[in-house]
Amino acid sequence: MMFEKAKNLEKQGRKVIHLEIGEPDFLPPTEVIDTMYTSAKEGYLRYSSAPGIPQLRNALAEYVNKQYNLSLTHDNVIITPGGRFALYLSFLAALKNSGKVAILAPDWPAYRECVKFVGGDYVTLNTRLEDSWTPSEEEISTLLDQKVGTIVLNSPSNPTGKVLSKETIQQVAETAIRKGLTVISDEVYSDYVYQSPYYSILREPKCSSILIGSFSKCWAMTGFRIGYAIGAPQMIKSMSKVQSLLLTNVPEFIQFAALKALENEKALSDNVQLMKRRVDKANQALSKMPVSSHAPEGGLYAFPRIDKPGIDSMDFALQLLEKKGVAVAPGIGFGPYPGFIRITLSQRDDVLMDGLSKIGEILEEYRH
Amino acid sequence: MMFEKAKNLEKQGRKVIHLEIGEPDFLPPTEVIDTMYTSAKEGYLRYSSAPGIPQLRNALAEYVNKQYNLSLTHDNVIITPGGRFALYLSFLAALKNSGKVAILAPDWPAYRECVKFVGGDYVTLNTRLEDSWTPSEEEISTLLDQKVGTIVLNSPSNPTGKVLSKETIQQVAETAIRKGLTVISDEVYSDYVYQSPYYSILREPKCSSILIGSFSKCWAMTGFRIGYAIGAPQMIKSMSKVQSLLLTNVPEFIQFAALKALENEKALSDNVQLMKRRVDKANQALSKMPVSSHAPEGGLYAFPRIDKPGIDSMDFALQLLEKKGVAVAPGIGFGPYPGFIRITLSQRDDVLMDGLSKIGEILEEYRH
Repeated sequence: MMFEKAKNLEKQGRKVIHLEIGEPDFLPPTEVIDTMYTSAKEGYLRYSSAPGIPQLRNALAEYVNKQYNLSLTHDNVIITPGGRFALYLSFLAALKNSGKVAILAPDWPAYRECVKFVGGDYVTLNTRLEDSWTPSEEEISTLLDQKVGTIVLNSPSNPTGKVLSKETIQQVAETAIRKGLTVISDEVYSDYVYQSPYYSILREPKCSSILIGSFSKCWAMTGFRIGYAIGAPQMIKSMSKVQSLLLTNVPEFIQFAALKALENEKALSDNVQLMKRRVDKANQALSKMPVSSHAPEGGLYAFPRIDKPGIDSMDFALQLLEKKGVAVAPGIGFGPYPGFIRITLSQRDDVLMDGLSKIGEILEEYRH
Repeated sequence: MMFEKAKNLEKQGRKVIHLEIGEPDFLPPTEVIDTMYTSAKEGYLRYSSAPGIPQLRNALAEYVNKQYNLSLTHDNVIITPGGRFALYLSFLAALKNSGKVAILAPDWPAYRECVKFVGGDYVTLNTRLEDSWTPSEEEISTLLDQKVGTIVLNSPSNPTGKVLSKETIQQVAETAIRKGLTVISDEVYSDYVYQSPYYSILREPKCSSILIGSFSKCWAMTGFRIGYAIGAPQMIKSMSKVQSLLLTNVPEFIQFAALKALENEKALSDNVQLMKRRVDKANQALSKMPVSSHAPEGGLYAFPRIDKPGIDSMDFALQLLEKKGVAVAPGIGFGPYPGFIRITLSQRDDVLMDGLSKIGEILEEYRH
């Protein structure tokens, strides 16, 4: 919504700083584009296996095996046109037993939309800034007592930047095992972690889980539309059947491009370093403003609360866009968080700092 | 199924002639691949508009406007990852009112699968070889009397190669208008027409319809996964919402590649000429065999019946593969047509003729 309003302003000739979209500003490595081209030239232009080319499925299995000391194979992996489609296929597969899904808010709105789309229902646990966005043991218990069949985790979180602790993940996994639940763990930002080590759901192999991954965020391949899911072979098979029916497969030349990206660890760590620097700068800038914020532990976003009682961040965002030409996402899009805004930090440093300083200016004006 | 069996034989070192897959053997024009590359290099690597880039949507509107004397705009067009996804979105949109779909058999199995997948139901009209696969006026009336909300047409047909006549299309359209039905017209083979002029559902603008199109068959772009649907703006909008939720958009660089293909009328007419020659050759070869067949009026397939009472074409296809190394699709996959086989004609001339002569050989053996 803010994106459309921003685009309209731009059409009128206004300059807009885009801090509302969840997309890296940098480009994928050149060799990724080149590999796509050479693969196409070599004739990888045909219908292909629904779950993906074995090379990429194996490489992704290896990628997580190395990190988490597992022994997954290509049978545990499906390549999808983006993380969204992986999520959709996961909900379809997971919701066969129970249509009720537990979600930790604030959350990326696509979870709720997708659950509704596949005919399911959801209950939410609204985590709080005061608790550093950490759900308590009791809250998780209560949440999972509500006859849910699936729980969605998203760590690092969009929008909060929260990285769920080992303890939280373990508690969820233990409950899931005990109650026979499936954990859908959206880990598309898992490489963007700035503090303590990351704890993936894959570290709990006894827990029935589907991991959602993507090449969009880490390798800036948003426009390639390629993501994946990792789960039990049976689950992957059932997801492949749906993918085969709905779109056959992800283009092979895109899969080869992703394979090339996966081999480029340097590009990934450069991107993570770049984002860490921006997150630090944003934290500094935000600390001087009349907002409360939990410093992002990972991901691409900050999610500060504007410290003015009764403020509606939708109004605030509209005024910010109108007066200062800065677009952010109002908190209400992510659950009952009307005082919050989500600021995307994956913008060129000078643009980001300019945007943040304009947010500071309007906050000052609001104060008086 | 036959494809997998054929692949297994190949793994054992056997040579297999593939006449079972619906895929052109030729390649897309080089400039299509080059355009994909240059677009990617130019930075078309981002999230983009769900229904597609305006340039391609407009070009497709123009493409049909010119052919059918219409005045459609980009609002009538959505770009999808293949014809299959266009079909899925169409069923979702069309089945909101009534979940019952009418299908003319023999038919591409994805129609039935997709209808079931979106929670609908179907009734079929089994057309007959003896009638040149033409449904009678009475049959259509009876079919559409069964409280259906949607009818699927596929002309030229996969598997029969039937091109529905102006009269048939008009009769369906008139009934659809009278009863408030939606016609989903799968016209992915519409450029492959070898005899009388083609009659598109778009020639009946008063009829509520969704046209399914694709770049897979005409420009041999199967592996790019790009298709489209053309319909009323409201329908396209509702389809775009789902596409946005499930996969955001088709990669922009692929859309620019498709735009390049669309401009290349020469490549298209070359492909159609090539296929016409093969269809003629196949007709000649089939006319000397103990089969009955309606010469394909369009499309990429022949669908002969083996003239041996009680024959099971599944057994036949398995023996053909085992003994002669030729893979075809048994008729039972397309409805109650157990005596038929579908032969894909989009193979290199010598391979196709070799395959056909081996089909002839085994038919001779069957005779004795």
